[in-house]
This record gives sequence, C-alpha cells and structure tokens, in this order.
Amino acid sequence: MKSIKTGILGLGRIGKIHLQNLMHKIPQAELIAAVNPSEAGKAYAKKFNVPIVSSDSDVIFENPDIEAVIICSPNDTHAAYVERAAKAGKAIFCEKPLDLSLEKVKGLLKITEDHGVPLMVAFNQRFDVNFSKIKSLVAEGKLGDLRSINITSRDPAPPPIPYIKSSGGLFLDMTIHDFDMARYIANSEVMEVFARGYNLVDPEIGETGDIDTGFVMLTFENRATAMIENCRQSAYGYDQRLEVFGSKGMTQANNIYKDTHQFLDVAGVHGSRPLDFFMDRYLDSYLNEMNAFIGALSKNEAPPVTGLDGLKATAIALAANKSMKENRLVAMTEILDGLG
Amino acid sequence: MKSIKTGILGLGRIGKIHLQNLMHKIPQAELIAAVNPSEAGKAYAKKFNVPIVSSDSDVIFENPDIEAVIICSPNDTHAAYVERAAKAGKAIFCEKPLDLSLEKVKGLLKITEDHGVPLMVAFNQRFDVNFSKIKSLVAEGKLGDLRSINITSRDPAPPPIPYIKSSGGLFLDMTIHDFDMARYIANSEVMEVFARGYNLVDPEIGETGDIDTGFVMLTFENRATAMIENCRQSAYGYDQRLEVFGSKGMTQANNIYKDTHQFLDVAGVHGSRPLDFFMDRYLDSYLNEMNAFIGALSKNEAPPVTGLDGLKATAIALAANKSMKENRLVAMTEILDGLG
Amino acid sequence: MKSIKTGILGLGRIGKIHLQNLMHKIPQAELIAAVNPSEAGKAYAKKFNVPIVSSDSDVIFENPDIEAVIICSPNDTHAAYVERAAKAGKAIFCEKPLDLSLEKVKGLLKITEDHGVPLMVAFNQRFDVNFSKIKSLVAEGKLGDLRSINITSRDPAPPPIPYIKSSGGLFLDMTIHDFDMARYIANSEVMEVFARGYNLVDPEIGETGDIDTGFVMLTFENRATAMIENCRQSAYGYDQRLEVFGSKGMTQANNIYKDTHQFLDVAGVHGSRPLDFFMDRYLDSYLNEMNAFIGALSKNEAPPVTGLDGLKATAIALAANKSMKENRLVAMTEILDGLG
Amino acid sequence: MKSIKTGILGLGRIGKIHLQNLMHKIPQAELIAAVNPSEAGKAYAKKFNVPIVSSDSDVIFENPDIEAVIICSPNDTHAAYVERAAKAGKAIFCEKPLDLSLEKVKGLLKITEDHGVPLMVAFNQRFDVNFSKIKSLVAEGKLGDLRSINITSRDPAPPPIPYIKSSGGLFLDMTIHDFDMARYIANSEVMEVFARGYNLVDPEIGETGDIDTGFVMLTFENRATAMIENCRQSAYGYDQRLEVFGSKGMTQANNIYKDTHQFLDVAGVHGSRPLDFFMDRYLDSYLNEMNAFIGALSKNEAPPVTGLDGLKATAIALAANKSMKENRLVAMTEILDGLG
Repeated sequence: MKSIKTGILGLGRIGKIHLQNLMHKIPQAELIAAVNPSEAGKAYAKKFNVPIVSSDSDVIFENPDIEAVIICSPNDTHAAYVERAAKAGKAIFCEKPLDLSLEKVKGLLKITEDHGVPLMVAFNQRFDVNFSKIKSLVAEGKLGDLRSINITSRDPAPPPIPYIKSSGGLFLDMTIHDFDMARYIANSEVMEVFARGYNLVDPEIGETGDIDTGFVMLTFENRATAMIENCRQSAYGYDQRLEVFGSKGMTQANNIYKDTHQFLDVAGVHGSRPLDFFMDRYLDSYLNEMNAFIGALSKNEAPPVTGLDGLKATAIALAANKSMKENRLVAMTEILDGLG
Repeated sequence: MKSIKTGILGLGRIGKIHLQNLMHKIPQAELIAAVNPSEAGKAYAKKFNVPIVSSDSDVIFENPDIEAVIICSPNDTHAAYVERAAKAGKAIFCEKPLDLSLEKVKGLLKITEDHGVPLMVAFNQRFDVNFSKIKSLVAEGKLGDLRSINITSRDPAPPPIPYIKSSGGLFLDMTIHDFDMARYIANSEVMEVFARGYNLVDPEIGETGDIDTGFVMLTFENRATAMIENCRQSAYGYDQRLEVFGSKGMTQANNIYKDTHQFLDVAGVHGSRPLDFFMDRYLDSYLNEMNAFIGALSKNEAPPVTGLDGLKATAIALAANKSMKENRLVAMTEILDGLG
Repeated sequence: MKSIKTGILGLGRIGKIHLQNLMHKIPQAELIAAVNPSEAGKAYAKKFNVPIVSSDSDVIFENPDIEAVIICSPNDTHAAYVERAAKAGKAIFCEKPLDLSLEKVKGLLKITEDHGVPLMVAFNQRFDVNFSKIKSLVAEGKLGDLRSINITSRDPAPPPIPYIKSSGGLFLDMTIHDFDMARYIANSEVMEVFARGYNLVDPEIGETGDIDTGFVMLTFENRATAMIENCRQSAYGYDQRLEVFGSKGMTQANNIYKDTHQFLDVAGVHGSRPLDFFMDRYLDSYLNEMNAFIGALSKNEAPPVTGLDGLKATAIALAANKSMKENRLVAMTEILDGLG
Repeated sequence: MKSIKTGILGLGRIGKIHLQNLMHKIPQAELIAAVNPSEAGKAYAKKFNVPIVSSDSDVIFENPDIEAVIICSPNDTHAAYVERAAKAGKAIFCEKPLDLSLEKVKGLLKITEDHGVPLMVAFNQRFDVNFSKIKSLVAEGKLGDLRSINITSRDPAPPPIPYIKSSGGLFLDMTIHDFDMARYIANSEVMEVFARGYNLVDPEIGETGDIDTGFVMLTFENRATAMIENCRQSAYGYDQRLEVFGSKGMTQANNIYKDTHQFLDVAGVHGSRPLDFFMDRYLDSYLNEMNAFIGALSKNEAPPVTGLDGLKATAIALAANKSMKENRLVAMTEILDGLG
C-alpha cells in the first residue's frame, strides 16, 4: 500500500490530535505541511518536526506532493478550503460541518464530485470503539429487524456564549452527531422528524435564541424509530450512550468511567464519574477515523463517511429546527425537495 | 393500629398473590372472604384457609364486617364492583384500569367521593423497590430541576390476540403504567403529548387495529420531558427501566437478572437474562402496594394512589391515541376539557 | 410422583421458612406435624393450618404416616433427632451441623446407613441460584480444568457472644459452608489445608478463644486450589461471592443488591448496598433445597447432599483449626485417618 | 520548576513508550539522548527527533548535561547500568528488577546512597489510575483498619520458554508486582509468607523447574492478610484486579474492557473481553510513573518508589520460593536477617 502525503489546516485542539496521529501513529501517512495562523500552533508543529510549517495555506494547496488535506480550521473556513482543495485535486478530510447552509453543502458536494476528489466528513463518533461495536452487531444481523435507536448525549458544560451564537444552534452543532449516528446505525433514511427543545440550563443561552436541551424523534424508512436526547450540561460528566433494539435482541454502548474502582461502605456502592472531556472520551476515535481515511485513499476506495452523509445529517438538523419552531411533525421531503 | 378486615374479588394470577399477602404477610390485614366464579380459584382460597369462600360476591358486599374490598376480577367488571363497593361504604383497592372510558372513570370517582370511601388504583410499579428508590431521590431534591424522564418497557412476548382485542390498545393497556410513572416521578401534570406507534412484532396484532411498538413524548408543566418506549416483544426478556435526568444528576433503575453470575471466556463476558415474567419482576411490588393500602386505611389516611391518578393516566393514554392517529402534537386540554 | 408426608422439628427462623415452603410452595410435600417447645412457634404453625402441632416430638417419630423429618431445632439436638429418626425409619433432612464431633458424625452416618434411611445435610448455599449456576458451568466443562476457587463470605455483624461460644468456632460454624461449597465446585477431595485466623472485629470474640476473621487455602486432589476468606463483620452488608477459574475461562457469582438503582452526580456513581440479611439473600435457596430433598424422596433417589458431605466439611474445618493452631500445612489424612 | 534533561537506555517495548512520553507528554522533561544496540531502536528515536541517538551508552553516562537516566534495557544489564549511573551522579529510573540477587540489590542501594543519587524502581502498577484510586481510599482512612488485600493477576498467555528460564521464576518475575502492590496498599511490612505453586498451564514450563500458577498468603505487621493469585494463562484475557477490605468498607479495582457494549439476546447478556495486552492495560501507568519521577526530581523530592521498595518485594518473592519448596510458613526474618 502506498504512503499518503498530507497537509493539515488548523492546529486547534483537534488539529493537534490529527497532527500527532499523522506523524507517529499512522504508518501509511506522511505529514508534509501544517498551516496555522498563530505562532503557538506553528510551534507545536515544529516540536513534532513537521517539514513545512507556515501560516500561509498556499504551502499546502500549491504543493503538488500533497495528496490529501486535513481541514480542522474554524467552521466558517471549511467551505472555502474544501472548494480550494477540490480545485487543487486533493483528497479532503473535513471536520464537520461542511457548512450550515444546505445549499452550500450541496454545492461543495458537486464541486468535489466534478473534480473527482474523495471527501470525508469527520463524524468521529462513528469510529468510537464502543459505537462501532454496536454498528457491527447491527450489520451482522444480531439485532434482527431494528425497532428503536436511543441516543443520549449530554455535555459536561455548555460552550461559551460566543460559540453558541455562531454554532447554528443545538441541533446543527451538537445533535448533528446523533443524527449521523442514527442514520449510520439504522442504515436507512429518515422520513419524518419531531423535535422539541428548551432553555433549561442557562438563561443566557436562551437569550441567543438557542436551546440547551433537545428531544428528537426520527422515523426511518425501515420503520425504526430513533429517540435522541441532548443537553448542554450534565452534573455527572460527559454522557454518551447508544442503545439499539431489534427483533432479536438489544445492545447498548455505555459510558467510559475515569477508573474502574468501586467502594462499598455503610451507605452503599460508590464509583468514579464518567470521563468528562470529549478529548478523553473520543481520543481513540480520532485515530481510528484518520486511519480509515488514509486507508481508503491508499487502497483507492471511497472514504467511509461521505459528503452526502454530511448533507443528510445537516438536513435532519434543519428539519428538527423546523419541527421545533412549528410544533409539528416535519417530513424530510419538506427540507430536501426544495434543494436544487 | 387497627386490623383491617378485607374481602377479595377475583383469584387470577394477581388475586392469588394478594390473597397470600393478605393472609400471611400483612399483619394488619385480615382476609375474611374470597370470591371467585371457578372451583380452581376457590380451592386455592380454601387451601390458604380463607374463612369465607364463595362464587357469590354478596358474601363480600353484604358482609358488614368487611371494611375493604380488593378488586382483581376481569377488567370489564371493575366499574360495577367499584360502584357497588362505594355504595356499600367499603374502602376500595382496584386493579387498573378502573375503566377504559374516561367519562365512566370520572363517574366512578364521583361515586366514591359521594360515599366518602377511599379508592386506590393499583399502579403496582410505583411500589417496585427500584422505582420507588428513584422517586425518593427525586423527592429529596437529589436530581435538582428535572429535565427528562426515560421509560423503557418491553414485554417478553405479546399477550393472546383476544386479550389485545379487549385491551383498549397498547397505550391504554401497557403504556398506562408508564404514563402513571412519568406523572409520579415528574410530580407535575402533562401538558402535551406526541405519540407514534407501529405494528412490527406480529401482523395479527395489526389486524386487530392495534400497535405493538409505541413511542411517546410527554411535555410536563414543569418543563420536564418524558420519552417512553414500549414494545410487546423482547427477545432478551422483560425490560423495565427508568432513567431520570436533572440539573444535579441522573439516576437509573435497571433490570433485575435471573442470577448474578458472569462467565468470561475467549469470546467475552456472558451473563444471564433479565427476569422475564412480570410476576417475578414485580412480586415484591404487590406486597408493598397492599401494605401501603392497608397501612393508609389503618391510619385513616388517603391511599397513596388515587382514583384521580387512574383518571389522569387514562387521559394521557387517550391523548396518545389521538396524537398517533392524527400525526400531531395533542394538548391535554383537548382530552380533559370535554369532560363533564 | 407420590406425595411425601413430613414432620418438622423446630420453628425458629429457618424452621418457619421450611414450614411455609412445605405448606404452600412444594406441591409434592405434605406437612403433617410441627413440633416446637414454645407457644410462639406453635401459634405460627397453627396460623398456617398445620394438622398436628405439638411440643412433643413423639407426634412425629411415632406417627407411621410421616415419611420424612425436617430437623431445624437447636444444633445440640441434631444428633439425637437424627438417630431417633433413623431408628424410626424416616428420611432425614437436617440443618448443618450434624454434630461438631467428627466421631459422632461418623456414628450418625453409620446409623442412617444401617437403617437404610436417606439423610440430607442442609447446605442451603448449594441451592442458591447464583452458586448453582456456577456449579452448572463447571459441571458442563465450560471452565476446563479447574485452577482456583475463591470464596468470600463476610457477615454483616457478628452473632451474640453466647452463640459464638457454642458455635465450635469460625471454621466449624461459618467457613463450613465454604468448605462444602469448595468441595462441591471442585468435585474433588481436599488433600491439604493451610489456615490462619485473627481476632480483628471485636475483642470479646477473642476472649472466647475464637477468631472473627479467617483465611484458608485448600489444595484439592485435582490440583485446584481454593482460597477462602471469612469475616464476622462487614460495614457494607452481607458479602457472598464465589469465583472459579479454569483453563477455559472464569466465572463469578456476585452479590445481590437491595435495588438496581444507580445515581450519578458530581461526586460519581452511587448505588445501594448488598442485601444484608442471610434470610433475604438466601431465601430462595431454602425453597430450592427442600424441593430437591422432597423431589429425591419421591423419585426414590439419593438426596443431593449427603451425610458424608457433612462429615467431609466438618473434617476440613477441623483441619483448618489444627493448621491455624500449629501454624503449618495440615494433611487431611491427619484428620481422617484417625477416624474409626 | 526546572526542566530535567534525561537519557534513555534501551528501546524495547517499554523503552519506546518512555521515549514518547519524555519527548511529547512531559513538559518538564527533555530527552537528550537515546541508546540502543539495534538499528531499529535507533531509527525509532530518530523518527521522534531525539537529539543524540547512539548504540554507545557513553553518550549518556559521559554527558554532563544529562541529569537522569532511564534504564529499560534487558534485565541482566540493570545492575551494571545502575552502578555506572550512580557513579556518574545521575538520578536513576530503573525498570524492575534491579537484580534477582538480594545481596546484589542491597549493594546497589548502598552505591546509590553513597553517591547521593535518587533511585526509582519502576513498579508501574502503582501508577495505574485504578490501583492508585484504591491506594488513595486506603490512605484517606475510608477503609478503616485493613483486614485483607486480594490480588488477582492472570496473564493472557505465558511468555516464551527462554524468557521463563531467565526470569527467576513466577514469584520473582510476575508476582513481584503484587508483592509490591500489597506492601504499598497495606503500608506495612510483611512478617510471614505462605506460598504454593503448580505447573498447570504448560508442561514445558514445568520442565524448566518453574511454576505457572501460584498462590500466596502474606501476613503483615499490621495484621492485614494478603491473598495473591497468579497464573501465566487466562483464556479470557488479561485479568488484573485488586480488592481491599477493612473495618469501614471494601474497595475493588476491576478490569478494563475492550469496549463498553452489552448485547442481550435470548441466551443472556454478552460483552467484550478485558483488554489483553499489558501495554494497553497499563499504558497510562507508564506516563504517570515517569511524571512522578520527573516531578520528584524537579522538586528535589525523593522518588515515590525507592530502591528499598525493590529490595523488599524481591525479598518477599524469595520467601515465597522458600515457602513453596519447603511446604511451610516462612518468616521474613529468615530472608532478611542473613543480609549483610
């Protein structure tokens, strides 16, 4: 299998993880260039001995050796970078979301298709070892016909208000992972969406026009139902669970705890909390997803998560927004039929 | 505390449990008379040495010594027995449902009120040690402000088709327990109901016009949301879980397993299934609820579950039916405002 | 299968359980007579409608209808009752211990053998659903060749000092259950015993000459090793666990908890304690063992636990005492070879 | 806090982990030089950009900038490297064992003391997050007076026969971790040792004169007892558990599983196996122990595990060997009193 030369754009929290993985943990990958506006990010790349470190993205896009770009810059730069990478004929790995506008996402898909470049949208949770075990069980038929999918996602604490303001709202920012997961598990398309949302955690969130607690019911074409619950705050840490029920059985992926100890005293049993930082909880998933991307490229296969997956999850989120605002069941056709 | 003299109507599966409990496990109760049409039921009562055993309910209603009647005869006899007991001035413990008609339930409440007799509707799951622990934690404020209640109830196997035909449908027959539980935990009234249901288990159930798999979202006045999932069939046994999430924490009541063993081999960890008969799973709850009824009577207190609780749960079930049929969010006022 | 007519001697805590089981839960058994010196015990038997209730054991031993006697009177009466039952030709179910003297136990075995009456020693823990699941897995070969057996038994609180004084000591009174369990699981005989014991819980126990905390290592003929730990006091409740390790896997029977709830807050996960009364923890085992006894009689089979099992467990306990006192490894031949 | 300049000797499996940690995960550490005889090891160090890479240990011992050496070369080189490092005045972090001879270990302790260099023996399991949680609970007094410590350690598969031949035997090679853990948890010294061992896994191991399954009972000065069980083979993966019981409660550190999924079907509950490679199970512990070593140096504190800890664990292992061979209880004085 050939080695894949890559360049990375953006060295924030997730960019740093991708950099480490590409440098030291993925034998098939070679990281040629790292681009970041700030000196801190560049110093990090230099410490890891990345050959080319710059604040100018040209070192990536105009470098003919680079076959794949890893986009983990701020969300509002994704679309432009994807477009430029496509035009430069480079394979693309892009953090979600491609864009908050469905029209724009649709446009990006067309561009990448026209230029024949592979595009992977980084829904990292698909690559979490616990959730991918669930997916395997479903794919192997162990669950029989699916009846329900339950997803619980509760963040330890809300992000800063400025982040929330530019996030597109809870459903587009947070629940989008669960919409993708539900589609991935169901292996079917959503037909109808019912969603409700509340501002229960912090009034400041409500003042931005956003919710912090959401409930969604998705109806799939294969008659499975997904029930999704999200909250921006959880006193007991990061809660990330998935349950699937079918005609032959049920399966659950549970939380990972800080340690495995149990302490029993006169008051009962006590144990530690779940891991409460997404970088702890999902650290392995970032390596797994990058391995999957690089592996697909080196075998000339399509990446395991596509731009279309990104589009579909975004469309469900928009349907959920519509359902919540109009207090009614929304058909996916209402969202998708209007698309050019 | 005084001893309470009781008579029991109906010696089916649950009646037999009540009989044993009243005879041997509740010191404050005295079982004077047992009524059942069949010889088998009467033989059972004789074996346990119940003083009066008959197929004629007069031995209960016309016996001035009997202060309380336990109604566990077939569902379609409940209303008539409740009415007769009320008129005879006897305290009433009645298995759910009082009746499938909300108007009729409302009437029964009026009659018992007019005659000043206590009426307890037997929502036994409130008295399950696991669920009542959850209730205590909520009541003590350990959860903070409630945000969500998740209830999963999956039966090991569907009941016979004739039972389903006369059951009033999944929401009135099975989910009604969860509607009561959600109200009990939330300690608030339901405002709006969204429900969907499917026939996924057995086409014969669909042919009766009923569903076998249901999903309900309840919105409470205190802004908590309940997500309820029911299914008539579960390959892995009886699944009865409750989860409550609030601003200060989260709590779950999990299933009880056949045994506690774990076996680890090259393929992983293996354990036994959950208990799969409701009489195993909830056996203690029947004793606890009867103790609560008898205890309340002997202290001249109101019983812990009232006729109004029965009415409210029935109303939510009717709203769920309406929501499912009309594919829309239904306000509880649509159901309750019409009531005389 | 024929019905077995029984008489019970002793209506203490365990006797009452046997009485209820024989009266109402074991269809093949008929309880004809109950004997107890005190009025309270007799009143209990009358409440349950036992035909003959007396303080004179003759009503059992001289009643030709009674085929089996259930001996649950005080320990120091066991030997005499067993002997009398044997001579009366009645099958015997006797609570452990038959006697604290190995010579006397040996004598009782001879008497029952000479009179051809079945004798079951009531090691109820063999009939606990969790432990018997472990036994099944071992018997089915799922564990492969056994390597180790770990038994943990910790009582919630020590018994009264007078009880301890007449108990024969920790190894004969408490660990004897574990010695039997280890033999039962190993399906092999003990060759060597190493034991240590300490007075760590209550100095008053030490003053009686007894220990309250014991550790035993048993070596079996099949080369399995059992590690047993006992303590008379446990702050977190009754702890009863069994672990078996073999060439193909490992299995554990864990504790049963008061309820299944988990509560997660900022401090971590919390749950209830294990059941802490042996009558809760082992209630089912008493029914199962009586069913096994009655079932064996009605099929003319040998009872599943024999007098020899009682003798062997007693011998191991005596070897443990010797090992502890002499601070050395003791061979079982040292105990058994001297026996007449 | 000052930064510590280090050199590493040996780039096998564990050396590579230490290298990565020193290069990228411990801000206070600087890795100046890496020494390994083979090209593969050196290539690894170059990939990570270690400034000096050589097969000659002089680059470390004669480099005045290097303050601390990390010794993870083959076991039979430890003693010589420790001695040379001491003479060069460098702080020492050495993988266990210092040496298999107690006399030699004693000599190394004297040399390091004479040269005033800190010496840390790398008992990495002390730094496992699960076990260190247990240690904290004990240290905080949550357990009360300790009564027992149970350690289970079962390897997934035996090491190669040549490794076993030079290992010093099960107790010195494998159980030594548990001897250290027991001392660490008990916070007391061992007085007496009773040990038994068997060749149950592979006859070839027995032919080397070694055992593959061992059982040890340790008696501590504070009257706590440790029960340790080791096996070279476990069908279900790597089993690493610790349980501590005291007057106020009990605590357990359990295994870490490959994932958190549970699958329930008609046959029961199923989950994945424990992690079965020690590099997965204990990966974090290597980072934690190096952080502890570097942290202690930079604060001029003594390292948290000392040469004396290494000596004591070795002495217990030798006592266990003696006990096993002589089939008797061995006092630690028999081992330690002879030491010069």
